[in-house]
Amino acid sequence: MNIALLPGDGIGPEVIDQAVKVVKAVGKKFGHEFTFNEAVVGATAIDKTGDPYPDATHEICMKSDAVLFGAIGDPKYDNDPKAKVRPEQGLLKMRKNLGLFSNVRPTFTFNSLIHKSPLKKERIEGTDLVFLRELTSGIYFGEPRGRSEQGDKAFDTNIYTKEEISRLARMGFEFAQKRRKLLTCVDKANVLATSRLWRETVQELEPEYPDVKVEYEFVDAVAMRLIQWPKAYDVLITENLFGDILTDEASVISGSMGLMPSASLGTHVKLFEPIHGSYPQAAGKNIANPLATVLSAAMMFEYAFNLPEEAKAISDVVNLSLEKGIVTEDIAEGEKSYSTSEVGDWLA
Amino acid sequence: MNIALLPGDGIGPEVIDQAVKVVKAVGKKFGHEFTFNEAVVGATAIDKTGDPYPDATHEICMKSDAVLFGAIGDPKYDNDPKAKVRPEQGLLKMRKNLGLFSNVRPTFTFNSLIHKSPLKKERIEGTDLVFLRELTSGIYFGEPRGRSEQGDKAFDTNIYTKEEISRLARMGFEFAQKRRKLLTCVDKANVLATSRLWRETVQELEPEYPDVKVEYEFVDAVAMRLIQWPKAYDVLITENLFGDILTDEASVISGSMGLMPSASLGTHVKLFEPIHGSYPQAAGKNIANPLATVLSAAMMFEYAFNLPEEAKAISDVVNLSLEKGIVTEDIAEGEKSYSTSEVGDWLA
Ligand SMILES: CC(C)[C@H](C(=O)O)[C@@H](O)C(=O)O
Ligand SMILES: CC(C)[C@H](C(=O)O)[C@@H](O)C(=O)O
Repeated sequence: MNIALLPGDGIGPEVIDQAVKVVKAVGKKFGHEFTFNEAVVGATAIDKTGDPYPDATHEICMKSDAVLFGAIGDPKYDNDPKAKVRPEQGLLKMRKNLGLFSNVRPTFTFNSLIHKSPLKKERIEGTDLVFLRELTSGIYFGEPRGRSEQGDKAFDTNIYTKEEISRLARMGFEFAQKRRKLLTCVDKANVLATSRLWRETVQELEPEYPDVKVEYEFVDAVAMRLIQWPKAYDVLITENLFGDILTDEASVISGSMGLMPSASLGTHVKLFEPIHGSYPQAAGKNIANPLATVLSAAMMFEYAFNLPEEAKAISDVVNLSLEKGIVTEDIAEGEKSYSTSEVGDWLA
Repeated sequence: MNIALLPGDGIGPEVIDQAVKVVKAVGKKFGHEFTFNEAVVGATAIDKTGDPYPDATHEICMKSDAVLFGAIGDPKYDNDPKAKVRPEQGLLKMRKNLGLFSNVRPTFTFNSLIHKSPLKKERIEGTDLVFLRELTSGIYFGEPRGRSEQGDKAFDTNIYTKEEISRLARMGFEFAQKRRKLLTCVDKANVLATSRLWRETVQELEPEYPDVKVEYEFVDAVAMRLIQWPKAYDVLITENLFGDILTDEASVISGSMGLMPSASLGTHVKLFEPIHGSYPQAAGKNIANPLATVLSAAMMFEYAFNLPEEAKAISDVVNLSLEKGIVTEDIAEGEKSYSTSEVGDWLA
């Protein structure tokens, strides 16, 4: 199997390294061969080529069976509202050009870490929900966007076609059918025209999935209920921007951002990435938590290679590392902590 | 002083009744006269006049020194994506026509209720933050919005002028100067053109307020940090849609939505309302929690009448009711609970 490696910026390269060790160990144990092809993206790619998602990177991804991606972002671009090229443009171009219309972000808890959550144990224990965030349309891509000629007015366009909504919604229904059969459509249909089209489209699909119960909830209400009672949710579908906000909010439940993986699925190759950012303050220090990336590799075995046993071997060893305290300083709590590469070696 | 009363829908009338009792009691104690003028808004106004914010209501508001508003919304409109007139349109028209560009939503904890929060005590004790949500522009109002001719595509426009951003930002700086001198500008400047104008505009204002420290943070990061460590924030400014989501999320901290008041300030009359919705399931049952509305009346004394002592008398008695357990069933926890009107009578 061909795996494209896109380490990206900040801690990206360090955490990707650990995932590669684990993938190789799985290959050895289960008898699979992997070829890894590395490519640049993000600020690193701007520095090297001027383009945050170069054609060469795209070709490597398209020829692969899966993409393992680290993180992008560099603070030197964040506080410069006038920067012409941004690392994030590379991320968006990659999502669009790879057709990754569905970002799958599970939220669950780890028994050995549940006490680290800012939320009370009884509220979160047993949480098992998954967001399907639309990833290639909406206000992230809609045109027109920009400034008025005088520069004193700015605008963005949120736009969705029925087709874009229904392919994501169908995936949501199918996820729900394999899970607890509850689908929540998150929108702001009391204000937005796009949200009304979301709601209408999902309503029209309902009869095709009679075993799935569908709930419609406003994004502001979900932002509350997600913290009050996350166990109420099973599968949630939502547009790009709401998904960005809510999935990050949901990541708080588990107690550590450093643990949450994601998969991006669509029309071409599948991509796997931790949901945390490039964490520039930690870059190069060998302290970043690699578990979210390792668990993203587990999702790769499940979703891209259809090898659930291999996926389980990875999540099992991650759970073991948490139980045994073979963890980085962000979750060690004054106990002995290990470096990024030590955790990777141990897992492998 | 003239107060316009807009009870609105659902539990609105019941909770407004209690606030009126308390305002009258304050008037008696401190020697103020009030005239109350009631008007319709929301679903109630549609049923009566066909218009969710009739001209007659607008005139009553404009002639008043302050507006006390309950809630709007009726489920019969929520799941009908094709409804022509919606209660929410009345709310938006009211905000726009009254020039209420800044929605002030404080988040704080009550000692006697802190154990009810889904968050751990040590994370939230002492939280004291305030959101200034832009309320009359952005994607709530931007044009064009609607459907393509074939109906298979929908779009909304997010739009901001420098002027709209700077008047809200200036209010944020001034709030911060009177508080802990930290201002957080919440945006998505790595993706949205409007957010880049927000960031640029706030950056330009910084030198005028040298005593205020300004932080810029992406909306997805705030959605996390707000739950992880709310004490990190003092004053947050944000656009309309992000404010809608984040202020509702923040309301979870206190442990009860039924407690959180808000003020809307701008170019004409000031408006005060609980942040909870119309809670139709409870309407007419005399069980709704009136405290958020009563605390909104306290904000009215502070922001509209500049009578801080009267405001404090109200918040003191609310605290006392919480300590003594003179509360509605939503916060009574198996202890004896009181009806909406009993709580109002006790407070008065
Ligand atoms: C970096 C940024 C553009 C990106 C997004 O908003 O999609 C990130 O927050 C994410 O969620 O992957
Ligand atoms: C009812 C709805 C239109 C409204 C909003 O989104 O502004 C509400 O959620 C609020 O926050 O006051």
